[in-house]
Amino acid sequence: MTMSEAIEGRAALALLERARAVVDPPLRTALDTLPGPLRRIALYHFGWEDADGAPADGGAGKAVRPALVLAAARALGGDPLTAVPAAVAVELAHNFTLLHDDVIDRDPTRRHRPTAWTVFGVADAVIAGDALFALALRILAEDPHPASAAAAGRLSACVIELCGGQQADCAFEGRGPREVSLAECVEMAIAKTGALLGCSCALGALYAGAEPERIAALDTFGREAGLAFQLIDDLIGIWGDPARTGKPAGADLVAHKKSLPVVAALRSGTPAGAELARLYRTPLTGADVRRAADAVERAGGRDWAQLQAADRMAGAVQELSRAVPDPAAAGDLLDLAEFVTRRSR
Amino acid sequence: MTMSEAIEGRAALALLERARAVVDPPLRTALDTLPGPLRRIALYHFGWEDADGAPADGGAGKAVRPALVLAAARALGGDPLTAVPAAVAVELAHNFTLLHDDVIDRDPTRRHRPTAWTVFGVADAVIAGDALFALALRILAEDPHPASAAAAGRLSACVIELCGGQQADCAFEGRGPREVSLAECVEMAIAKTGALLGCSCALGALYAGAEPERIAALDTFGREAGLAFQLIDDLIGIWGDPARTGKPAGADLVAHKKSLPVVAALRSGTPAGAELARLYRTPLTGADVRRAADAVERAGGRDWAQLQAADRMAGAVQELSRAVPDPAAAGDLLDLAEFVTRRSR
Repeated sequence: MTMSEAIEGRAALALLERARAVVDPPLRTALDTLPGPLRRIALYHFGWEDADGAPADGGAGKAVRPALVLAAARALGGDPLTAVPAAVAVELAHNFTLLHDDVIDRDPTRRHRPTAWTVFGVADAVIAGDALFALALRILAEDPHPASAAAAGRLSACVIELCGGQQADCAFEGRGPREVSLAECVEMAIAKTGALLGCSCALGALYAGAEPERIAALDTFGREAGLAFQLIDDLIGIWGDPARTGKPAGADLVAHKKSLPVVAALRSGTPAGAELARLYRTPLTGADVRRAADAVERAGGRDWAQLQAADRMAGAVQELSRAVPDPAAAGDLLDLAEFVTRRSR
Repeated sequence: MTMSEAIEGRAALALLERARAVVDPPLRTALDTLPGPLRRIALYHFGWEDADGAPADGGAGKAVRPALVLAAARALGGDPLTAVPAAVAVELAHNFTLLHDDVIDRDPTRRHRPTAWTVFGVADAVIAGDALFALALRILAEDPHPASAAAAGRLSACVIELCGGQQADCAFEGRGPREVSLAECVEMAIAKTGALLGCSCALGALYAGAEPERIAALDTFGREAGLAFQLIDDLIGIWGDPARTGKPAGADLVAHKKSLPVVAALRSGTPAGAELARLYRTPLTGADVRRAADAVERAGGRDWAQLQAADRMAGAVQELSRAVPDPAAAGDLLDLAEFVTRRSR
């Protein structure tokens, strides 16, 4: 990490901390309106309560999406404080998808704690997720800001896209190693990861009263940065340092995950791609994990993903400069995008 | 059934058919915007497609809630056609809750067909439910009608209440026979059954530009009628004619359901209530089912539920006449309420 990168990282962390500080009070006030048992599940999920209801001090996530809402509003000349309801809404919508994704994927941990469904059961976790999404839309519906209805429309449409992405992700798991095309895989990643980041930027722009072209450009900025993040995350899932990721080497390969570099390799038409497909039909341990990682690399999957990540990030920056020509005004959004793509798991 | 009741029933059926005819085209147009696999699940759930994707001719439910929206709009002097987006939204929200409830309750059939989760799996049914709710709110957000934002706020708040009711229903199942109070049970039934009926009426009133007092009165009308319906449905679950209900006699007792007359009996402080509690701790078959039904009756549960249903219906009618003093204008809403409470399972 260079000096300037370190400084940028610190700038992004400060933005995230500020977003957390601005969004948390109205977020907690909103959660407090939920029916008792659902409030408990929500407070547990956000890290504000333990499983037994005792207060806990957070770990409610990085607030990337609220920070994007506020930074986008500021970048387009709006008052970020008027966009706080939109920031709260995207954070609620994000956590609704996390609650349901954890149920669907049977993930046991989230933010270093047992997932809500493991503590409260599948039924209650599903219902609590539903309630968080309803709360997100209630907040927008009750917000008198002139952009709130358009924001609700965009957030609802984004959640439909997210649902499509989550469904595709589940469906891909059931297919054979070479039965998922790279285009499908990219589309799924944009829907699952990019859509809500793009929507967060768009909502900030909407609340700043920006023109439709700028709103659209900021949406694309968030989506492209989101895909860049996913590509880098997928590379880390194969070649990440176990000491930094906290996961064994090649964790995604062991899980037979159809991540972007893997699918690029599988669909490469190369002998290494065919070798990878063979390896993906068997359990992977020890030397086989290294062999599979090498096959992804020899089939061009690693280079493709690295190039794509750089391309997508360049595209994101271009869209950003189109929406916000003044580099000083665009600085916070750029810091956040670089922070998101740079962070390791 | 008297002659006038038969005529009322026919009037209600005509209202429901008209609502179905008005709501179905925009509902299908909305469903067609969903990502492919989610669209398939939705069309199956609504009865418009078979499991293999072949067209089917409906059975999409009775359209009670859309009919209430349209009738409420008309009763308050509005043009019901302008309220169609609200009618579509409540129908989508209702079906979102059905998809999730079926997953949570593991119900195998819905409208005489296998439930969506048994056909497409739990994950896809949960995700499709999420998408239907997002679609409901997208439709309201994109509707230029001046009442659409207030309608979205009411619908979101209603779904939060519904979630609370569904959570309570699940929680009650895990408690002992005498560990659920009658007040909790009534609150749960209002949240699960009354809230969306009330919200449907309120949305119609909102779209007619009605004053807040009338909107609130129509909301209470729908809630009280909904509770009356639930009380009667619970009575049928114990004493309904198997030839008409299609279920064995005392089906709710066999399932140890904590329905309203049962809880009234369990909490009666009578010897019959204590006997029922004992019976509810063992599997019920044959003569025990009749014995449990007799215990509910001797403990006063049957009378209580019948009186409550009549009281609640009277309260509903009173609220209706407060919101819509002209009996001719209120006629359709009354027909629908009486149809809902009269129909057997």
